[in-house]
Formats: sequence, C-alpha cells, structure tokens
Amino acid sequence: MVKETVKHTLKIGIIGAGRIGKLHAENLVLLDKVELKAISDIYVENVIDWANKLGIKKTTKDYKEIIKDPEINAVYICSPTNTHAQMIKEAAEAKKHIFCEKPISFSAEETFEALKIVEQHGVKLQVGFNRRFDHNFKKVHDTVKNGLIGDPHIVKITSRDPEPPPAEYIKASGGLFMDMAIHDFDMARYVTGSEVEEVYVQGASLVDPVFKQYGDVDTAIITLKFENGAIGVIDNSRKAVYGYDQRVEVFGSKGSVAIQNDHPTTVEISTMQGVYRDKPQYFFLERYKDAYVIESREFIQCLLQDSPLVCTGNDGYQAELIAKAAKESLQQGKPVKIEQFKSEIIKP
Amino acid sequence: MVKETVKHTLKIGIIGAGRIGKLHAENLVLLDKVELKAISDIYVENVIDWANKLGIKKTTKDYKEIIKDPEINAVYICSPTNTHAQMIKEAAEAKKHIFCEKPISFSAEETFEALKIVEQHGVKLQVGFNRRFDHNFKKVHDTVKNGLIGDPHIVKITSRDPEPPPAEYIKASGGLFMDMAIHDFDMARYVTGSEVEEVYVQGASLVDPVFKQYGDVDTAIITLKFENGAIGVIDNSRKAVYGYDQRVEVFGSKGSVAIQNDHPTTVEISTMQGVYRDKPQYFFLERYKDAYVIESREFIQCLLQDSPLVCTGNDGYQAELIAKAAKESLQQGKPVKIEQFKSEIIKP
Amino acid sequence: MVKETVKHTLKIGIIGAGRIGKLHAENLVLLDKVELKAISDIYVENVIDWANKLGIKKTTKDYKEIIKDPEINAVYICSPTNTHAQMIKEAAEAKKHIFCEKPISFSAEETFEALKIVEQHGVKLQVGFNRRFDHNFKKVHDTVKNGLIGDPHIVKITSRDPEPPPAEYIKASGGLFMDMAIHDFDMARYVTGSEVEEVYVQGASLVDPVFKQYGDVDTAIITLKFENGAIGVIDNSRKAVYGYDQRVEVFGSKGSVAIQNDHPTTVEISTMQGVYRDKPQYFFLERYKDAYVIESREFIQCLLQDSPLVCTGNDGYQAELIAKAAKESLQQGKPVKIEQFKSEIIKP
Amino acid sequence: MVKETVKHTLKIGIIGAGRIGKLHAENLVLLDKVELKAISDIYVENVIDWANKLGIKKTTKDYKEIIKDPEINAVYICSPTNTHAQMIKEAAEAKKHIFCEKPISFSAEETFEALKIVEQHGVKLQVGFNRRFDHNFKKVHDTVKNGLIGDPHIVKITSRDPEPPPAEYIKASGGLFMDMAIHDFDMARYVTGSEVEEVYVQGASLVDPVFKQYGDVDTAIITLKFENGAIGVIDNSRKAVYGYDQRVEVFGSKGSVAIQNDHPTTVEISTMQGVYRDKPQYFFLERYKDAYVIESREFIQCLLQDSPLVCTGNDGYQAELIAKAAKESLQQGKPVKIEQFKSEIIKP
Repeated sequence: MVKETVKHTLKIGIIGAGRIGKLHAENLVLLDKVELKAISDIYVENVIDWANKLGIKKTTKDYKEIIKDPEINAVYICSPTNTHAQMIKEAAEAKKHIFCEKPISFSAEETFEALKIVEQHGVKLQVGFNRRFDHNFKKVHDTVKNGLIGDPHIVKITSRDPEPPPAEYIKASGGLFMDMAIHDFDMARYVTGSEVEEVYVQGASLVDPVFKQYGDVDTAIITLKFENGAIGVIDNSRKAVYGYDQRVEVFGSKGSVAIQNDHPTTVEISTMQGVYRDKPQYFFLERYKDAYVIESREFIQCLLQDSPLVCTGNDGYQAELIAKAAKESLQQGKPVKIEQFKSEIIKP
Repeated sequence: MVKETVKHTLKIGIIGAGRIGKLHAENLVLLDKVELKAISDIYVENVIDWANKLGIKKTTKDYKEIIKDPEINAVYICSPTNTHAQMIKEAAEAKKHIFCEKPISFSAEETFEALKIVEQHGVKLQVGFNRRFDHNFKKVHDTVKNGLIGDPHIVKITSRDPEPPPAEYIKASGGLFMDMAIHDFDMARYVTGSEVEEVYVQGASLVDPVFKQYGDVDTAIITLKFENGAIGVIDNSRKAVYGYDQRVEVFGSKGSVAIQNDHPTTVEISTMQGVYRDKPQYFFLERYKDAYVIESREFIQCLLQDSPLVCTGNDGYQAELIAKAAKESLQQGKPVKIEQFKSEIIKP
Repeated sequence: MVKETVKHTLKIGIIGAGRIGKLHAENLVLLDKVELKAISDIYVENVIDWANKLGIKKTTKDYKEIIKDPEINAVYICSPTNTHAQMIKEAAEAKKHIFCEKPISFSAEETFEALKIVEQHGVKLQVGFNRRFDHNFKKVHDTVKNGLIGDPHIVKITSRDPEPPPAEYIKASGGLFMDMAIHDFDMARYVTGSEVEEVYVQGASLVDPVFKQYGDVDTAIITLKFENGAIGVIDNSRKAVYGYDQRVEVFGSKGSVAIQNDHPTTVEISTMQGVYRDKPQYFFLERYKDAYVIESREFIQCLLQDSPLVCTGNDGYQAELIAKAAKESLQQGKPVKIEQFKSEIIKP
Repeated sequence: MVKETVKHTLKIGIIGAGRIGKLHAENLVLLDKVELKAISDIYVENVIDWANKLGIKKTTKDYKEIIKDPEINAVYICSPTNTHAQMIKEAAEAKKHIFCEKPISFSAEETFEALKIVEQHGVKLQVGFNRRFDHNFKKVHDTVKNGLIGDPHIVKITSRDPEPPPAEYIKASGGLFMDMAIHDFDMARYVTGSEVEEVYVQGASLVDPVFKQYGDVDTAIITLKFENGAIGVIDNSRKAVYGYDQRVEVFGSKGSVAIQNDHPTTVEISTMQGVYRDKPQYFFLERYKDAYVIESREFIQCLLQDSPLVCTGNDGYQAELIAKAAKESLQQGKPVKIEQFKSEIIKP
C-alpha cells in the first residue's frame, strides 16, 4: 500500500533547515526520481532565498504542513534531538517514510515507543548513521562480511573530534556517549555484524573543565564485549588538534583490515627538517561529504525498490542502549551489561 | 565592454554533448551566478531528455545558434579537435568568452591564428588542462611557487593510462604527444613556472602493434630542458593494468615535493599472504572528478571578476609546440629545440 | 668500590645458553671494552663448539662457577624465570652487576625480596625490556618526553604474536599478562613516564582452547588508568597470522605520535588485482634484532660510566605488579587497583 | 684445482684499509668458514690496533705480501680505483679469487685487459655493486625475474646523494657517470635482465660550480634503451638535502614494482602544523649496512660452493661501457650507442 505511492518520483519534505538539513537538501536535488518539495524551519525566513535557488516549492515555519501534505512520500527529520520521537510518531501515522538524524531520542524508552509506532504503520525508518556509507568504513564492513579476515577477535575504533562544541551545546548534548560515541557504537555493530553484550568505560576530563562541570567527560576508552565472542575498544577525544581522527581496525583469525584517515592531498614534502604531509580532513563535513550523498541515495533506492535499509530504527535503538550502559559504567566504575534486546519486537 | 555584459548571472552555451560536454554541463548547473542556457550537438536527439532534466532551455543541432545567441556570455567548446580553431574564431568574433578542450588544434600554426583572433576581440580563452585544478597537482605547484623546495633542479612526471583507446580513436588522435603527453607538457610548465627549451624522446611500441601501424608509439620517455636550467622527464604508457597512474615530483635545492596516486579507499588488508590495498582510481573521470568542478568554478570566477585565468590560450599553444618538437625528436632520434616563442604576441 | 673494578675492560659471564643467551653472547663479543669470559648451561655440551668459535674462554654446567669467578664484573641471567630471583641474590652478594631477562619472577613478593638484596649490595640491575631500545619505540618515548605532543591523554598499544607458543610452554608461562603483556605494561610506563594506577581486563580464548584449559586467555583488551590522568589501552593476541604486530600511539593535548610495524622491504607491487606489500617482520628476533644490540651496548656503557640505567629492577617490579592486577581483574570481572608502590624502597 | 684449495675455511686478505676496506673486514670476521688473515695499507700504522682487536694476524704496508701469501684464497681490493686493474692481474696470476670495489678502472680497455687475465687463470671475480644485495633492490629484481609484472616496459631509477664529495675527490672521481651513476647502470641491467643499447644524457651543473670547473655535471637525466625493447631513465643529483634517495620502479605489461627509501623509524607525529616523519637514511653506509654484509656472505658462499656469482667482472665492464657512452652523449648532445659487447670473450 505504501509501496504503491512511490511509483515514479518520490516527493520529499525536510523538517529542520540547519546545517545538516541544508546538506541533505543539496544532495537530494541532484538525485534522480526525487523531488524535494518542501522544507520547514522555525526560522524559515533565513532560508527562503536558498530554497528558491534550489527549486524547493514550499517553505514553512510549521513542520506539520509537511507531515500533512498528501503528496509527500518521505520526510527527513533534521530538527533538534528532543523533537525527533514526536515527529517520528506523527510522520508514521501519516504514512510517511522517515529519515531521522541520530540519536532518535535521549531516552531508550522513548525511542522504543517511537519505533513501535513506526512498525505498526508499516513505514520505513532510516537513522542517520552516515559513516556506514563512507568509502573506507563500508569496505571494512564488506571485508569482514566476506570472511577475508576470518572470525573477528578484536575491534578497535578511534574517533576524535578536532575541537569541542560550544559549552551551550555540551550542556544539552546528552553527553559524550549519546552525542559522539553513539556513532562508534553503531560502527562496532556494523563492522562485526554482532550485538554488544557488555561495556566498560574509563573516562577523563582532560580537554576542558566545562565537560566535568556538566557531569560529562571529554576523553574515554570504552571496552566492548560482543555476542559473537569478539572484544573491542573505542577511544574518544573531543579535541585532536591535527584534525578529525576516524579509524577502525578489525582483527580476526585470518588477518586484519584497517583504515587510515583521508587527507586533502597525497603531497609529501621532503626537506632538511623532515618529511611532511597534510593533516587529515578537518571534520565530518569534509570527511563524510560523499558519505552523506550515498546515505540519501541508498535511502531513496530502498524506498523505490522496497528493499531492506542499510541502517534501521533498531540500529538507532541498539546504539542508544549501548550509550546508556556506557554512561552507567562511567558512573559506577565497573562493566555494565546491555539491556535485554527487544529487537524481536522492532523490525524495520 | 565585454566586462559589462557579465554583471549578474553568466549565461553559458556548450558546443558538443559527448562525455566531456555533458560532464561540464552537470558541473555548471550547480554553480552560483551561472545559467547553462543552451547545448548543441550534431546528434542532439540523443541528449534532449538529459538536457530537460538539467533545466537547459535550448538544445540544437547547429552550434552557430549558440554563438549567435546575444544572451550567451561564454561558450564551452567540447566538439572534436578538428573543429576547435574555427569555432574559437567565430566565438571570439561574436564576443563570447571561451572555454576550449585541449588541444586547440593539431597544428601550431592554426592554433596561433585562432589565438590572434581571440586577442583582437579581447575575449578570454581558457584551455581545458584540468589537471592544474587537481588537489594534488595544485599543491605541488603551490609548494614550488612558495619556494619551499628552493630552485627546481629535476622534474619527474609519470602519466600512464589504464588502457589504450580504440584503434579508430588512435588513428585520428594526433599521436601520443598531442593527445596524451600534451597534459604532461602543460604540467611540466605549470609546476616549474618555466618554459621548455628542448625535448628528447625515446619511444617504443610495446602495448599494441596498432600504434606502430599508425606511426605512433604507446610507451615513451621524454627528456625536457627548461629555460630556468632545470631538467625533467616524463614517462608515458598507454596501458597500466593497475589503473591510471598520475604522479609528479619536483626536486630542488632545498628539498622535494611529490605526490602519490589517489585510491578509492585507505583500506589495508593483512593476511598470511601479504598486505593489500586498493589500486589507484581507475581513470581520469574518477581521478579528476573534483578537478573538473574546480576548473569550471575558476573559469566562471575569472569571468565574473575579470581576473587572470589560471590556464590560457598561450598555455595551450606552448604545450602544442612541445608536442610538435617531441614528434620530431622521435622521428629524428635526437633532441629538438622548441620553436621560438611567440608569446609576446599572444596575451590572454 | 664496585665502580673501581670496571676500569678498562668489563668481563661478562652469561648464565643460560638458550636462544636468548646465545643472542646476547653474539652481541657482546662485538662490543668494545667487553670480554665475554664465560657461559654456563645445564646442557653445556651442546654449546661448546659455538662458544669456542666466539672465543669464550670458559664453559660450564654450573652457574655458580660464573658467580664465584672474581674476574667477572657482570652476569647475564638468561635461564628459566623460576631461577632468576635466586641467581640475582647470589650475583648481588658476589658484587656482580646484573642483566636479567624478564620477568624477574612469577611472584611480586619474590621479586621485591631479590631487589632489596640488589640494593643492599649496591650493584646495578637491568631488566630485559628490550623494546625500550627499539628505534621506533624509543623515538615515541623521546617525542613524548620532549613535549612535542603536549600532555598525554590516550595511550594505545597493540602487541600481537604471530603464533602461540607450544602447550608445554603455555602451562609454565605465568599466563598472558606475566609472559607477554608484561612488555606492554613496561611500554605503557616508558612512553608516558607515568605509573599505572588501575587496570581492567576484557579477555577471551579465541585462538586455541589450550589457553582456557590452563586458565589462561589468548586475546585481551586491557584498560589502564595512569597517575598523570592519562588513560590507555593494550590489545593482545597470541596469533596474528600476518606476523608480529607491535605498534604504539600516544595522543596528547598538542598532537599524537604513532609507529607502524617494520617490514622486510618497502617493495610495492601493483597489478590488476591490487597493490601488495610485505607482511611485517615475522617475530621478535627479526623485529628487535637491533634493539638487542643496543640494549647490551647501553647496559655496558652505564656500567663503564656508572650512569643511570634506562631500565631498572624497579621497572621490572612495577610491570609485574600491573600483570598481577591484570590477572585479578580478569578473574573478578572488574577494574583492580595496582598495589601500593614500594618504589621508595627499591632504588636502582 | 682452485676449487680444491677452499675445502674448509677460506683465508682472506684485504688490500686497502680505508672506510670501505674496514667495513668489509668487520663483516668478514663474523662469517662462518672464513678467516680474515691479512690486511695491507700504505698507512698501515693507523690500523694496527683496530686489526689486532679484530684478530687479523698480518698487517703490512705492501699489498704484494698478501698476493704472495700461499695460504690466502681470496683478496678484497679496496684501494683507489687507479690501482685496481694492476692488482687484479697480479692476484689472478697468483690464483687468488678476487672481490674488487667498483669501478674496475677508469678505462674500458684497461678493464677488458684485466678481465681477460682473470679468465685465463680461472679465478672468480666479484665487483662491488653492493646494491644488488640490498633487501629492496633484490626483491625488485626477483619480482621482475619471476614474471610478476610481465615484460618490462619502463625502468625508472632515482639516485641522489645527500651531499657532494670534496672538490679534491671530484677532480679524480672519473666524473658523475663513472663514479656515481655506474651503480645505476648496473641496477638497470640487474632489474631488467637486459643489456643497454643506447644512452642519452641531459646534464646540468646546478649544485656547485666546482663540477663545471672539472668538466663534470652534478645533476643528470639519463635515458636508456634496452636490448629487450624496454626503455629507462635514471635521475641523478649530487645533493638531496633530505638524505640519500635510492629508488627504483619497473613498469611492465602485467603491473609494476617499486620501492621507497628506508627511514630510520616509522614514527609519525601529527600536530596542528601537519604530519611529520623521518628523513630517509642519511647515506650509503646507513642504507646499505646489511647489503654489505650479504654481499660478502654471498661471495664467500659462491667460492665455497663453486657456484656462479651474482655480480661478475663482466657486470663491472658493461656498466663502465655505459658510463663511457653517457659521457660521450653529454659532450655531443645526442644519443650514443653502447660499444659492441665483448661479453662472449669475458666469462666469469
């Protein structure tokens, strides 16, 4: 039934025209079989010119106009996290497919409720774990999946931002685990193809005292135990002065697969002082530029072909459960088991 | 006078809707302050749907309709090489700025005549040496220009295609030097900031006998002597089975700067058999994808701001003179001096 | 007093002529101001020819002959671990300087007792943490010490063997932490210049069930908390099929320093299938060949110049305390604090 | 007959105890089945202590004492180039096997005469092209020989010294081609397994005017044409400020094989300013330390087993013929054919 509506061209509406909403908009207008029809923002006046230039027909302050529009097949939810769950429910009830930025909510219970409604209405929901669509990370995933390194034994993820967000943002961010490491929790599940059973956190506030002030940490080493027997570790920092540091390594019974950072150029300069090359790409907009394009392209293709999504609501939910356990581990100073999975209930 | 016409939005027409014409079209439609108004092709019926999707208003079999269109400020000449010189003349006379694919013609004399007319009419002409806009090559150029490696002593350029073109194409290509090495001759001038005085070629036909059949070679080592005292070498092959091989190294009194190829990913797989990574990007469309975007962006900016072009008609002419001398060197088996420069006459 | 005996040429005796004892012997004979006078082994008959070829004057079944020899200034203890502590005591009482392979003993108490006697007799004791003398690891240490990366925040050590030892060896090895990770505990202290306060282990038996059988693990992720506020992680495996994997990364407030593995060659082969290079050096004899030479050279220099050792008895003791805590953490499934330091008592 | 003399232990004498003579001595004393019996030098008084420490029995001012010693099976000729040919003749007549540093002489005729005498007396002669025994270069050779890259099409050799020799040395060096590029001519033959037919040189004096003063160049690009159809290029500089630059690449019908320089460490330091690593090994003593060891080991093994040498007198002769042709090409400004090979006469 939903399937019937997506015959020729998909009509899309975007809720939230901040940086990430605009990024998705500019990628969507270049895709075949897609019309980006509408965009909403509470400060819509700031984006009207930009929307006109892109040929977006409708701009509005009220996201409900997008959800109620009978022509629109799918919505992108790019508004602040605390609005996601409510909008997901409304969109699902209006039979729209949904792309939602991560995390779905700051509360695993709230996320679970939203996903149940998505399931009841038979719409598709993709969560914005953009790194699954990165050229490097995807090839690591494929290499493991194809058995080239045998059974995974050890997974190592490095994930460091070039600079901390503003204090204002930190306060409302949900903390390091929900805001930043959540991508790494998803990556751990994605590259191993296994659920996480237990997590232990060693955290510290070494970058800026503001994190401590808000009960947060800026530096962490997170140990993971997987259902398939593998073990893993994530290291996070809010400030890598040399740029965005995004690496993963999976070590297994038949070998290992690892990636290095992307750099703006391959230039090497050799002088009397040494050999120099570029720092890594500065931050996620540079590093994941192509990943964002592919993320939307794959979402659209799955809608058009009614095929399984690469990254589902359940993926968002599981990552939140790990983030929740990580926070508890930090507070309690000991390993914490991940809550019993309810994934049998939530099927994308 | 010409300047006055480019106040707000530049209107562009493209002549020739083959692979490269379409590539430029798709890049132009995304640029600010540009309207891609028209495209012509002798088989225009094949591209009408594609042109409509991109919002190009006019499609035509006859390139003269583009040149005569009084609204159009600049034309892209993407038709076969043997048509370039004539179209340049007509476009210049019609007061259009010109972007022309390389080479301008197969005859240095014909190129010179075309460039004189460009100069007489005060229009700008950019030649399609796309590699000048590549992230890697540009940084080599900048590093040398900024004096980081001192005076250049040795320049080394590797330029190998992944596979030879069809026999049909080889026959009409103008030969290895005019068709393929011409990019490398331009690169040699670009990274050193110096003219080439003398060239010596050691060539061979090792890849496919069809090259020999057409009096051509498929493998070459080309020695260059520069006006500034530096010496250089280009090595070319029509067939590098591992993919497009595009590297440069400039060695000087204070150090060296070198680039490696771009690869699709940074993935490394370590097994009992060895350590593996991706082959380089397959060919020029993959390697220079971003360079083509920047090439047009810079051309448009120079038109809008009436500023000097990065790559002029004279750059095209000089590269052709080197190609001509290279062909003579191959035939004569000895070094050949480049013809006296006429660059004082041709100012872009 | 001890100092007086080492005026011109140092006379050395080696206890234990197994693989590592012979390695030290072959390095010692090439050093200036050193005479390797004697070697003992319970199967001395196997090494007499080899010793003659090297010009070693005395060979004996009885290590006491070495310890009692009044000409000998220093002894190398290269016998099995369970003999180290007793031999250290006897050598110290005989006023010999001591080089002892790691670990000093399988019991922190026993090690402590041996070190007290070393201290009482004023002899020097160097423990065989050969990696401190490796070209790569030493430069990481120096880079951190010189402040180039600011305050250390995160330390990551990868340490994987190419293949597990024989079952016989595993049984008597003292377990992963005392036998293998002890090098990494020392490396963690060496590169950060800080003591470890707390350790948490996530271990698994994924390589071979024999480890489980002996109450051991073959795969581990070990989280460390340092006195200076930094946090760290070690990952260990008994079997990396691609070869010995020995890397470290220190990430700090001003940058990071990291090493890659050494490879037998720098050769890269590019074909239609991909780009290949050598696996890392196979195991510690290949990787640390030069480190063993430098280890002895530095030990001898410190004796000749009466200068502080790079790697002391206390360094051996501290690493054993961490290994002990790691074993407890694995058994208890929670983080364990390192025992109160007694380093004020033990001064090298 | 000669074979009979080398039953158990080879006795060796070295002529010339300069830097390279001493290097060979220190390597030889560590080899099995070898006794370094004697060393001669016109300033023998400077090396007597060093020789005693190494256990060399005989030291003398007169090289003839070595050649006449009936116990000695083989001699190393490490004296200045202008003495090599005469000593080779005398040694051959005395039935000694010979290791001779490169070049054999400054005159192809003189070299030829010496090699004829070597042949007449049935002794073996190895020329000191140490790079054939380097881990990297040897693997390139093996990769080509095993057919992994198919038929060689293009060979590229980079060979740059870190700093020019003293003016005194330059004057008597025989010039860039005979002194420095001769190693590269040999490398070209070694990695391709083919003779060189023709050479063309583009040279310049950019590093120091002293080279011009002595009719020499300090910078060169040398094009080679091989018998097997391949073409090649060598680039030389007397001064690479970042250190010794020694690379080779062979490109063929099925792929390519290339090496990078060796570096003292694999350390990478990432800061706000960029990513840094070590310069290459400083010069040949660092880069080829192990190659010198293997060079002697292989020479000794070939003598003991009476097996063919890796690097013969004819290899020395051919490289000299190419050097001679290169010099002529530089003087005449055109390609020069290599003199007809006389290798049928000279068999090692």
